[in-house]
Amino acid sequence: MITSTTNSRVKYVRRLQADRRFREREGAFVVEGDRWVADVLDAGMEPTELFVAESWNYKALVGRISPLFASDAVMTHMSDVETPPGILAVVPMPRLALPPQPTLLLILDRITTPGNLGTLLRTAAAAGVDGVILTPGCVDAFNPKVVRGGMGAQLRLPVASLNWRHIAEVTENLAVWSAAADGVQAYTAVDWRQPSALIVGNEAHGVGKSAEALMTDSVSIPMAGATESLNAAMAGAIILFEAARQRRFAN
Amino acid sequence: MITSTTNSRVKYVRRLQADRRFREREGAFVVEGDRWVADVLDAGMEPTELFVAESWNYKALVGRISPLFASDAVMTHMSDVETPPGILAVVPMPRLALPPQPTLLLILDRITTPGNLGTLLRTAAAAGVDGVILTPGCVDAFNPKVVRGGMGAQLRLPVASLNWRHIAEVTENLAVWSAAADGVQAYTAVDWRQPSALIVGNEAHGVGKSAEALMTDSVSIPMAGATESLNAAMAGAIILFEAARQRRFAN
Repeated sequence: MITSTTNSRVKYVRRLQADRRFREREGAFVVEGDRWVADVLDAGMEPTELFVAESWNYKALVGRISPLFASDAVMTHMSDVETPPGILAVVPMPRLALPPQPTLLLILDRITTPGNLGTLLRTAAAAGVDGVILTPGCVDAFNPKVVRGGMGAQLRLPVASLNWRHIAEVTENLAVWSAAADGVQAYTAVDWRQPSALIVGNEAHGVGKSAEALMTDSVSIPMAGATESLNAAMAGAIILFEAARQRRFAN
Repeated sequence: MITSTTNSRVKYVRRLQADRRFREREGAFVVEGDRWVADVLDAGMEPTELFVAESWNYKALVGRISPLFASDAVMTHMSDVETPPGILAVVPMPRLALPPQPTLLLILDRITTPGNLGTLLRTAAAAGVDGVILTPGCVDAFNPKVVRGGMGAQLRLPVASLNWRHIAEVTENLAVWSAAADGVQAYTAVDWRQPSALIVGNEAHGVGKSAEALMTDSVSIPMAGATESLNAAMAGAIILFEAARQRRFAN
């Protein structure tokens, strides 16, 4: 049983939790909790490390993978959450490629709040987008908070961090719409059955100039009162599910 | 200037922040921040108390209302947030009545997370519902966290906490749909131009038996993958904006 926080495997986990560059270099990230670990296994992925607390009842996973036991203090040290769930895995980052001819992409322009990014990934997966592009300046998709908020979307959905030149190439044959409070077209008036991309911008500053350069036009969500507003995750969900509705009826 | 946390007005604010029954008995709640206080004034409402930190530059509100000054320590003591914004008002609860013949109501069944309730109220206001009904077991709409999450929706939208007998009376002539992961009808197949109510259930347990007794049928949001899910606030937003879309085209 691991009882020291200076154990090299424990230090490796801490660094994966805290350091985005290190995650990218190692091509690995951390998940916590039995539901999450089961999700990883169900997705056909193999954790490279699995830690279980001495106090934890791990029978649900018996036979699937052999864990390393660690003291509760060490588990708490490795965990990113206040109440560690007692099971933690290191998982290789899924490298799911964007399809060569996407029909619906979500582009997230400098989304900086991990909770918002997690929710947007989860919603995008549920709405059936082909992939998500993260612009420069986005929080990364394997940040521990984003992993929790995404509820496994990162395992099933192609998510690519691209520079603006690559984003321009990927979206070349797509109608590109940005969500904006003062958008020109109502989101319900757009034909989402055409190959399209939706840009959702930064929580405070909206869509930036680099994103605007790619844009076909902006869309807005008509609201009941002049003073009402929706946050970025909510606006994204409403528009993506309108796209899903139109595309469902097109088939 | 108030410098003591045992000042009776300061104690009154603390109790309003912490105690739901006291808020209801007094018919008052607390808002913090200049944007919020301006919202209250714009809605034609008059704070009964307005506190401003000694360090605060309050010129934006000069002439609209006379503040009581309080030391920064007292402001921090009264505040519900980690970084108090330096202005705090006690506001009478708006008692907006549900319309006698509602065309679209949102019923929130035992929503217990303040952030979710705030977001749902904000979304409901943006989608143009006629009113929101909170069932027994809901967190209250004037809880400080709900007030912050609602972004002023509580000032403009009728929100009523009713018992189940009253809820049955109010919904008697409405088609009542509950949102459920295994709902019978797709939410896009429902005719939301008919007088309707949507029930969104508890975050973990869904819609309860009392709510089911009122229900015409359940609706679900078709999703791309079997393992995808949406939280209560997101599901509510997607369905309410589909209702708004249908109702917009009906006029």
